[in-house]
Amino acid sequence: FKSIATDPQYDEDTKKCAAFLVSYLNEIGLEAMSWETSKQPVIFAKNTAAGKDCPTLLIYQHYDVQPVDPLDLWESDPFKPTIREGKVYARGAQDNKGQCFYTITALKALLEESKSLNFNLKLFIEGEEESGSTGTLEIIKQKKEELRSDYLLVVDCGIPGPDIPAITLGMRGILTMDLEVRTADSDMHSGSMGGVAYNPIRALSHALAKCWDENGKIAIPHFYDEVQDLSPEEKKAFDFIMDEKMVRKEFGLKALCPDPGYLIGESVSIRPTLEINGINGGYTGEGFKTVLPAVATAKISCRLVPDQDPEKVFANFKKHLENHLPEGAALTIVKEHGSSAFRCNVHSLIAKRAAKAYEEVMGKPCKSILGGGSIPIIGELAQASGADVVAMGYGLDSDHIHAPNEHFGLDRFEQGFLTIGNLLKQFHVG
Amino acid sequence: FKSIATDPQYDEDTKKCAAFLVSYLNEIGLEAMSWETSKQPVIFAKNTAAGKDCPTLLIYQHYDVQPVDPLDLWESDPFKPTIREGKVYARGAQDNKGQCFYTITALKALLEESKSLNFNLKLFIEGEEESGSTGTLEIIKQKKEELRSDYLLVVDCGIPGPDIPAITLGMRGILTMDLEVRTADSDMHSGSMGGVAYNPIRALSHALAKCWDENGKIAIPHFYDEVQDLSPEEKKAFDFIMDEKMVRKEFGLKALCPDPGYLIGESVSIRPTLEINGINGGYTGEGFKTVLPAVATAKISCRLVPDQDPEKVFANFKKHLENHLPEGAALTIVKEHGSSAFRCNVHSLIAKRAAKAYEEVMGKPCKSILGGGSIPIIGELAQASGADVVAMGYGLDSDHIHAPNEHFGLDRFEQGFLTIGNLLKQFHVG
Repeated sequence: FKSIATDPQYDEDTKKCAAFLVSYLNEIGLEAMSWETSKQPVIFAKNTAAGKDCPTLLIYQHYDVQPVDPLDLWESDPFKPTIREGKVYARGAQDNKGQCFYTITALKALLEESKSLNFNLKLFIEGEEESGSTGTLEIIKQKKEELRSDYLLVVDCGIPGPDIPAITLGMRGILTMDLEVRTADSDMHSGSMGGVAYNPIRALSHALAKCWDENGKIAIPHFYDEVQDLSPEEKKAFDFIMDEKMVRKEFGLKALCPDPGYLIGESVSIRPTLEINGINGGYTGEGFKTVLPAVATAKISCRLVPDQDPEKVFANFKKHLENHLPEGAALTIVKEHGSSAFRCNVHSLIAKRAAKAYEEVMGKPCKSILGGGSIPIIGELAQASGADVVAMGYGLDSDHIHAPNEHFGLDRFEQGFLTIGNLLKQFHVG
Repeated sequence: FKSIATDPQYDEDTKKCAAFLVSYLNEIGLEAMSWETSKQPVIFAKNTAAGKDCPTLLIYQHYDVQPVDPLDLWESDPFKPTIREGKVYARGAQDNKGQCFYTITALKALLEESKSLNFNLKLFIEGEEESGSTGTLEIIKQKKEELRSDYLLVVDCGIPGPDIPAITLGMRGILTMDLEVRTADSDMHSGSMGGVAYNPIRALSHALAKCWDENGKIAIPHFYDEVQDLSPEEKKAFDFIMDEKMVRKEFGLKALCPDPGYLIGESVSIRPTLEINGINGGYTGEGFKTVLPAVATAKISCRLVPDQDPEKVFANFKKHLENHLPEGAALTIVKEHGSSAFRCNVHSLIAKRAAKAYEEVMGKPCKSILGGGSIPIIGELAQASGADVVAMGYGLDSDHIHAPNEHFGLDRFEQGFLTIGNLLKQFHVG
């Protein structure tokens, strides 16, 4: 199914994918339904026969995928899964259809084996993880009662290496923004107006440069107000696996800027960031054009940590930019997406069971890690369901998710099936 | 002739244009030739029958034109001159073929009228004014003797308004640069590396912002070292025609940055500038991509005033950027073009005669102005020929030169013919 939810031309495929899931989940013995939203439907399935006195486990996944371009870099059709050297190549092979597949297979096996479960099971598979989750957010607000659970398991993450089991106990939130600085109605000639017209690229560069202080800290007033530091004890609970040599080598990275006072592994997980994801203005083609542009644009994002509110960060950033633009320069700034970070209870039952499941399947001690990326609605889903969260999965950094030739190893399908199966069994046994 | 010298696909047309000029100039009684260079040929023509004891006048023009895109904005074929409402519409109608045409017509008339001239005449028509003049510069160095003259007349300028005669007694030089800041070998995900990888857009914004101090002065060390201020007396010699209201209205300009301590008319003519003509990095398309880019690029130019050396300014700028980039960030900077400013002798004979020619044709007192733009090789040509320069012409800001629907009024063809004719006559009469 070409369930590229971000591109309207694939809406039909996305709907078909959702319909298939509903019918398949019904077949394996769950009560499955499609929750319509103003955007893509959410698939909800449950088996709550165990009753009120038993614990409830909610599982989160998503059925949408990223666009496939550039198509010519794919070695085989992204929508015809192909096996090469023990790996499945396809868009979604890992993120999140592959991981969804072994999770549902484990559920199917459990339901076949045990006619009645000793816990309540709920499944929430959204279709907008790659495109903002606007519709999904609506439904979360509406279906609070249906979503109420004790434990939330997110199967959309990975492990730090092929032999390193790890539960993900938190991820950063995100705020994305689009902005434009305009100083005139039309472009001008740098000979006739250079020296008088305020160049919007200069104005934008200046305002952006003012977002960091001399020590490399983000200089937006109140940016760190809600940021809580981890206690030494809390820090000990996590593995901040990231060494400088590896990072320098993997991306040919030559310039580093870890948050002053923090390890690089901490900087990408427990610290908030401000990044300029794109900038554009004036003439950028071949050769030279002595244009004095009227407009400069940028795309900016922040990765947020627990207690940072995307709305507040947006307001503070906007004000800061306004304060550092020259008189007359017009700022247009649009908030694209905002979602809060989530952080798990390290001592929760589900965290312990997830770690145990990994350890029993992989035969190694399980680490606890914090992810630097974001899954938009986990914070909201955890809050609405009232559940303790844990995130797991078998993704690897080398799986090319979101990129051409996305793939997922058959061995990890098996490990995933066994791990989720083990975890479900623990809940069944109680 | 589609003499777009900047685009190699028009090389054939450019050569044909040059050949036509040589044959036409020979026909009207000059000894014309084509000087081949590694780029576009220079047309040189002369009549030096007057002999060593008579003064020599060198006239500069160019036969190349700017590209025509976007073609769909032209109301008629840019290479089929069309007359509408008393104006000729075509690429080059003004810059510089139209002005070249009336100049050659005036020469033709003089040569028809007077079999032998009382002054020596030289004509230098380059084919690279719009594309860097690399080949032209070579030939200027080689042909110093042939170019030696007393007076240099540049007919590639304009007047401030339809009824305002003005001689241009100087123009700014220019330095253009292309640069890239690289901090990694490949783009990264802002979730997994945000907070550790130094964003090259941030690095570039910071380094560019450091190019101006708090007062708006250019903060590159030694940038102003060679910049001479005009004495009050010198300032009086020029009209700095530019009023804020007009500028704000014409371009919808909302943010101004005149050089502190100078009028806006002075800022665009006797003061040097630094402009960011283009900037690019990361994702700049529709929607959002949380990319952490590896590279950011910019195009930068300076307008230079007399005594500023493009090479020195380039070296100082490069050093300044290097000093303000983070450790490990790699700067690649390429100098595209560099040419010096030219400034005329206000009291020279040719300046006086050019003013008189304007006054007699237009019936109004002639102003002296300084142009903010650049004609790449005038400084070098003036030096090689040893001549006093003056620039004139009938261009108006509203002629759309370099843009779609370039045009030139038939009335100004006539005025141009009469003015150049008057000036030539003054040299003939002596």
